[in-house]
Amino acid sequence: MSYKARIREFEAKVVKLKNSIKNIPDFPKPGILFRDVSSLCQDKDAFALSIDMLYEAFKDEKIDMVVAAEARGFVFGAPLAQRLHAGFAMARKPGKLPRSTLEESYDLEYGTSTLQITEDALQSGQRVLIVDDLLATGGTAEAMIRLCKHFDVEIVCTAFVIELFDLGGAVKIKNDYNIETFSLVEFPGH
Amino acid sequence: MSYKARIREFEAKVVKLKNSIKNIPDFPKPGILFRDVSSLCQDKDAFALSIDMLYEAFKDEKIDMVVAAEARGFVFGAPLAQRLHAGFAMARKPGKLPRSTLEESYDLEYGTSTLQITEDALQSGQRVLIVDDLLATGGTAEAMIRLCKHFDVEIVCTAFVIELFDLGGAVKIKNDYNIETFSLVEFPGH
Repeated sequence: MSYKARIREFEAKVVKLKNSIKNIPDFPKPGILFRDVSSLCQDKDAFALSIDMLYEAFKDEKIDMVVAAEARGFVFGAPLAQRLHAGFAMARKPGKLPRSTLEESYDLEYGTSTLQITEDALQSGQRVLIVDDLLATGGTAEAMIRLCKHFDVEIVCTAFVIELFDLGGAVKIKNDYNIETFSLVEFPGH
Repeated sequence: MSYKARIREFEAKVVKLKNSIKNIPDFPKPGILFRDVSSLCQDKDAFALSIDMLYEAFKDEKIDMVVAAEARGFVFGAPLAQRLHAGFAMARKPGKLPRSTLEESYDLEYGTSTLQITEDALQSGQRVLIVDDLLATGGTAEAMIRLCKHFDVEIVCTAFVIELFDLGGAVKIKNDYNIETFSLVEFPGH
């Protein structure tokens, strides 16, 4: 396939994904335009496409573990882990994980929160991919990065289905942690 | 492969899954022995095996949609949807889904809760598979069944990674809804 044809094919995939994402004004708070991946997941072709595209991006990266945030991050992180034959570690809200945990707090676009991971989630030397449904200001991703940094692992990338490109999340993750971000589709955050 | 060899192979898979599940006493409440799938997911071979076994069980069932409960249900339901090339609908706690929702409340082994699904989650005539990590008394599964029954769909089965076989969940689902249950591994609930 020619370069031009490949670009056109890629653009068509991105358009298909974008069209499957509903825009919900004033959710969960007034002034927030919520990009809703629940409509993407409910569309079997769009859902398959999203996981296929993430798999294509990381299939040669020898990922040992995928770490994803509760709960929408699980919807993309778990299938991707399965496709990559990687393990899957849940970053969960406090009190949800049994056994000893590590925790990190973070600022959200609206509010603050805390994520925990089990103390045995990652093993020394593993190559780790961090996954979430959406990158806004990057708070959730940063908390996952800091959780992973408790272990002696290599964070390969942070990957998202949606990036709100003008909210600075990718720049912050690059500047503060020298970690790349990857996203399937981009929208303005305002 | 002979019948005996196939049984031995199946038993070996079940043992592998069982060994990957940690037992946590007194979580989340005193007296509950919690069967922890987080340790299963963190083991890449056990996680792959669990999804492979679920896929084998349902690959010929022409599943259109998988419905799974927040949050651990997503970890198995989403990869299974992806393998089956089905859509994925999230049954979530109140306030988490944007857009108009339907809701059903239910009793848990410990406490009560409510699940919501978007009003457009399922389409008339679809074949639906309900997935969760664990079947105990069946409250969560019943709520998902009742959510699905708002739509004109066929509920093919309710599928679980773990069944606590002596807590009556499978019998209740069969008696009250005439729906079959399927589970990969069984433990006593007491």
